[in-house]
Amino acid sequence: MSCHACQRGYTSQCGGMLGGWKLSHVKDGVFAEYFNVNDADANLAPIPDEISDETACYATDMMSTGFAAAEAAHIPLGGTVAIYGQGPVGLMATAGARLQGAGQIIVVDKRSNRLALSRFYGADIIVDFTEVDPDEAIMDITQGVGVDAAVEEIGSQMAFDSCVRVTRPGSTIVNIGIHSDGDAINILNRGWYGGNNEVTIRSILCPGGKERMSRLMRLIANKRIDPTHLKTHSFRFDQLDQAFESMSTNADDVIKPLIRFPSY
Amino acid sequence: MSCHACQRGYTSQCGGMLGGWKLSHVKDGVFAEYFNVNDADANLAPIPDEISDETACYATDMMSTGFAAAEAAHIPLGGTVAIYGQGPVGLMATAGARLQGAGQIIVVDKRSNRLALSRFYGADIIVDFTEVDPDEAIMDITQGVGVDAAVEEIGSQMAFDSCVRVTRPGSTIVNIGIHSDGDAINILNRGWYGGNNEVTIRSILCPGGKERMSRLMRLIANKRIDPTHLKTHSFRFDQLDQAFESMSTNADDVIKPLIRFPSY
Amino acid sequence: MSCHACQRGYTSQCGGMLGGWKLSHVKDGVFAEYFNVNDADANLAPIPDEISDETACYATDMMSTGFAAAEAAHIPLGGTVAIYGQGPVGLMATAGARLQGAGQIIVVDKRSNRLALSRFYGADIIVDFTEVDPDEAIMDITQGVGVDAAVEEIGSQMAFDSCVRVTRPGSTIVNIGIHSDGDAINILNRGWYGGNNEVTIRSILCPGGKERMSRLMRLIANKRIDPTHLKTHSFRFDQLDQAFESMSTNADDVIKPLIRFPSY
Amino acid sequence: MSCHACQRGYTSQCGGMLGGWKLSHVKDGVFAEYFNVNDADANLAPIPDEISDETACYATDMMSTGFAAAEAAHIPLGGTVAIYGQGPVGLMATAGARLQGAGQIIVVDKRSNRLALSRFYGADIIVDFTEVDPDEAIMDITQGVGVDAAVEEIGSQMAFDSCVRVTRPGSTIVNIGIHSDGDAINILNRGWYGGNNEVTIRSILCPGGKERMSRLMRLIANKRIDPTHLKTHSFRFDQLDQAFESMSTNADDVIKPLIRFPSY
Repeated sequence: MSCHACQRGYTSQCGGMLGGWKLSHVKDGVFAEYFNVNDADANLAPIPDEISDETACYATDMMSTGFAAAEAAHIPLGGTVAIYGQGPVGLMATAGARLQGAGQIIVVDKRSNRLALSRFYGADIIVDFTEVDPDEAIMDITQGVGVDAAVEEIGSQMAFDSCVRVTRPGSTIVNIGIHSDGDAINILNRGWYGGNNEVTIRSILCPGGKERMSRLMRLIANKRIDPTHLKTHSFRFDQLDQAFESMSTNADDVIKPLIRFPSY
Repeated sequence: MSCHACQRGYTSQCGGMLGGWKLSHVKDGVFAEYFNVNDADANLAPIPDEISDETACYATDMMSTGFAAAEAAHIPLGGTVAIYGQGPVGLMATAGARLQGAGQIIVVDKRSNRLALSRFYGADIIVDFTEVDPDEAIMDITQGVGVDAAVEEIGSQMAFDSCVRVTRPGSTIVNIGIHSDGDAINILNRGWYGGNNEVTIRSILCPGGKERMSRLMRLIANKRIDPTHLKTHSFRFDQLDQAFESMSTNADDVIKPLIRFPSY
Repeated sequence: MSCHACQRGYTSQCGGMLGGWKLSHVKDGVFAEYFNVNDADANLAPIPDEISDETACYATDMMSTGFAAAEAAHIPLGGTVAIYGQGPVGLMATAGARLQGAGQIIVVDKRSNRLALSRFYGADIIVDFTEVDPDEAIMDITQGVGVDAAVEEIGSQMAFDSCVRVTRPGSTIVNIGIHSDGDAINILNRGWYGGNNEVTIRSILCPGGKERMSRLMRLIANKRIDPTHLKTHSFRFDQLDQAFESMSTNADDVIKPLIRFPSY
Repeated sequence: MSCHACQRGYTSQCGGMLGGWKLSHVKDGVFAEYFNVNDADANLAPIPDEISDETACYATDMMSTGFAAAEAAHIPLGGTVAIYGQGPVGLMATAGARLQGAGQIIVVDKRSNRLALSRFYGADIIVDFTEVDPDEAIMDITQGVGVDAAVEEIGSQMAFDSCVRVTRPGSTIVNIGIHSDGDAINILNRGWYGGNNEVTIRSILCPGGKERMSRLMRLIANKRIDPTHLKTHSFRFDQLDQAFESMSTNADDVIKPLIRFPSY
């Protein structure tokens, strides 16, 4: 928390590009019951009595990332937003958009269990892209105007293209999807008008720190959000491989599995 | 909407200091059934079918002003806010704070019917200042930290003082109360630390324009807010004097009276 | 100035996508000595006595656009910026970056007459991309950190790629170039890290309005900027075709030609 | 740098109200040649070779504070600003306003040596308040409009009153003066219009951190600012009392004295 990135407000890039992500992906022992956390004081926030440990653990990743997407979208109070992808982060982006005062939230996905949960977390309109063309649906819903903001959580070029096409001039696209395929993400000229329609594209990650964690837990404690509905599956610590397997294959309509340590 | 103030984003100061307010207070005929609106095209927004005319009329003043207070407060997602005064604008500031993602909303007033409505509009904690000292209560609730934002809607020096005392360093105080008594509003040195605690004090008014009105009506249409609970009394157009009388004397627990034109 | 785009602050998109641009490109008679300006009152600003008409005309396009690029870049005070392309708009982006407090301005182009003018307008370091690799040069200059902001004025994929590669996490890329080739602009995954390095990409255009014009002319009047050095050529009104020809072929090291009406 | 205030961006309030100020005023040994700095890693920035140690020391207080005033003033590019008080911090606010793109900088003081230096640091217009009424002068200069921003560096109610009177609706007043007299600072109703003219009042202090220090030194290294002109007097370390005496009595037209350690 004393590095240049953190001083500039980018805790996710702590100590270098994707620093926060590296802590959870690259550092050895991160899945052990006890492990070392760098600069722990900067990240330690008390869990209020009324929140279970299980509930609190959603604050650190899904809530912080999904809400960051909604915050970065700069949705004007009463404005419209389209959210592509209703995985755990996308669902929290939906909840975040609701908390940020969006006047109309349109979500795009194809899995019915996720779309059902979208409604619970605040979506007004559900677009199943296996049934309708999202571009047409969104332009129709917004009476030809386009949305004030779009969030791409899938990591798909097709979804990103749709974001570019359905956003009105002067709006914001937030990318939180991980675009791991190919060498580049394309911004369609037809939507971005050769780069002159004053649309802003932000890429974000997962902000940390004890101040943010305290605020996220306050939202849970005061019943603004109940993230536990993301949990579709529960595994013991010795079933870790199974949990990862379920996530990578999307088996059994998994949304988010919870791992329990033996001591809980 | 083409004056310098509007181009700078301050539609309430259209054409000069307090321009918007002057339209409603100084211009002749403003209480007639038909009257002239300057630059009408800039302010005309269609009322969606699902919203009654009666409901829509709350968007133009109480909602726009109260929500502007919540927006100007820059409450961080999950942050804390104290709102002094739960008149119609204060109640809408409460609802606005909820829509902006406040994690804890503390309201301060003394009238029980207003405080009951505060809960409906999203307050977490009610402080009746005839029963407890608001400074102590708020510092206690926030565990000695103070709030991230405070809104003063009463127009009272005593309430403004409390705002200054209960806000943490780096927070925001929004003044929407009309301080018509005396020559000056005092900022207590004890709270503002001689002007060095990085607290920002904003004065706001009521933003207008068709884009904003469309968004406010979208919030009503999509059930984010039902402003009609503000209406405690209803008057016919020929009872206008009675309506004003009730407002100025706070008679009969009035919150907001509605005036109906004969044709409705 | 009363349309939705203008009320949202996007005067360049007045009345619809690229509205301002359309006025100057599509509307008939725009190159006549007298022509109709929509909503003229919103755009009329007095020219101060100390500014010649010839000088004032730079405010409306090159200065407003180039400065908007520097403003949108959100360069922190003392931060670093790389500007790709030193045509008239790019040169004004250089001057704008200087006016916005950039601590180090690196410009990239290949034409020596433009690069000489870059120095005049405030560039600290000149990178001729026909001689050195701009990526390497910029990473070297910034000691491996990358820049706080980059501006792409050329409209070239190659320059945009370099912007993506030389910007540090949490920085801003502003696109003002017109990317008219191909169907899409690519954002390199290698630079944008699959969309997770918290870099923001803004597309901008040319903001208008009398308030902005007054401010730009104040900058000229108070000697913050002398835009007339952009003028490399001067044509009479009856040589209009020649002026356009010179711009499209970059003949004779043209930067910006000035057209004079017979009455001047 | 890992406390809540720092994570929220308010390094001056590190560890509690006025935390940074306390380090320099309350902590024992702060005037010794060697002393302990809390969280030193967060504040250590290399001094570039081309900057002398003497020059660098201006970055940590006068430059950081004065520039913070200019940044907090949110002066629009080409906008107008009035700066009350041209002590060392006020002079750096003048330089900061220039670096932030102010189109017209008006300074108010009474000491001729300071006002002369104001010109050097970028002031366009000098108002000696012993000769003219600053309110009248500023309203006259701005043709009755008032300024876009005002900075109060004196810590005087009279100056603060003038700020309130000469700022246009929707503008910003920054307080950096230390108002140590009396219990309160007054905001004149006549200027603030009872708290409804959408003027924002910010109190600021001196932001720290190695990222900011690096940027401030980059501004010196690249010749955007030469802070050494603030030095009117130089003392040896064993003359410390004399230096303080000169500051508190404003003896001999002192602006800023420099203390040299024996080893330099």
